[in-house]
Amino acid sequence: MADTDPSDGSGTDAGADDGSEGDGSTSDDLAWRTTGSEVEYTCPGFAVRRDDVILPDGTETDFHSVEDPPAVVILPFTPDGDVVVIEEWRQAVGRVNRGLPAGTADADDADLDAVARRELAEETGHEADSLRYLCAVEPANGLLDSVHHYYVARGCEPTAEPDLDFNESIRVEVTDYDDLLGAVLDGAVRDGRTILGVTRYELADRWR
Amino acid sequence: MADTDPSDGSGTDAGADDGSEGDGSTSDDLAWRTTGSEVEYTCPGFAVRRDDVILPDGTETDFHSVEDPPAVVILPFTPDGDVVVIEEWRQAVGRVNRGLPAGTADADDADLDAVARRELAEETGHEADSLRYLCAVEPANGLLDSVHHYYVARGCEPTAEPDLDFNESIRVEVTDYDDLLGAVLDGAVRDGRTILGVTRYELADRWR
Repeated sequence: MADTDPSDGSGTDAGADDGSEGDGSTSDDLAWRTTGSEVEYTCPGFAVRRDDVILPDGTETDFHSVEDPPAVVILPFTPDGDVVVIEEWRQAVGRVNRGLPAGTADADDADLDAVARRELAEETGHEADSLRYLCAVEPANGLLDSVHHYYVARGCEPTAEPDLDFNESIRVEVTDYDDLLGAVLDGAVRDGRTILGVTRYELADRWR
Repeated sequence: MADTDPSDGSGTDAGADDGSEGDGSTSDDLAWRTTGSEVEYTCPGFAVRRDDVILPDGTETDFHSVEDPPAVVILPFTPDGDVVVIEEWRQAVGRVNRGLPAGTADADDADLDAVARRELAEETGHEADSLRYLCAVEPANGLLDSVHHYYVARGCEPTAEPDLDFNESIRVEVTDYDDLLGAVLDGAVRDGRTILGVTRYELADRWR
């Protein structure tokens, strides 16, 4: 079971970045006012939202962004301290990506820990002995409303075959953690979730 | 001037992740075949592409992704070793974000170093004494084709007022590097570009 509630991470949400937002002193004069909002386009996986906004100087304009459900990213360690990674086709960039398992929450998923366990099982066939919440990340908040919730999973062991969605092309591998860290730091890994998960873990979590 | 060419980072591109892609031995059996591609939706800033694809098992389906231009992210140090950060309204997540300056390349931008210098000047009014390429990152390659190119800028000093786009709401601040690192590691920062830039720099670059 998780020994840290995701809400602890999510609780450091909007407003905590600068210690001033919400008190009206410094952040509010940067804020835009939204006067209307409409979904302009939808497709499997995401939607595009157009907001009518008023800028701080009074200019009326609109802004388009992508609505994407919350996702989980898992750094899954075996009992020996190796990492379970996946190789997966990524159509958006037209290549096979090697990195951390991840997946999207469904609309009725209230429990992100459960989503992390489900995605780990579905993508890798592994079950974790324990899960710990690492951090919440907006990967591209100039464009997306997405939030990626990072977990460290310990004691992961294979218990079943992966149970993939019809359009997932995935291969499961187990790799040495230091090799993965090395690949992140020498530039061989471009996948942002893997770079962020490994560097964030390495700095904040490995040694505690 | 840059002492590392961005192409060095980009050169570790597709195929380098697993050391096997491109040789046909392991990666190709995960690959999808694209039989058609069409832009289904466009708006200021990005477009949505629908690809007709054939999965490895022969299934014919389609896949939607977001086309977004390359971007630069800059970790700008003053001569004293402090960091120039910005507070900026982010409409996609409805809050003020405190983090690293960043910006998007235009279609005719061939030189990413120049884009990094331009975005640093436009967003913060600072000019850098030197630029070094840090890494290339796909922030959300399940959905976006975006690549973010990270730079470390040294010797940044204010030389002009910021020159903002009409819809940019930005405040410039200078902060202690260790305070910024601390905010990343204690979960106060949710912005993926800032978390990744700082942790990646801290592990690979600070001590060399």
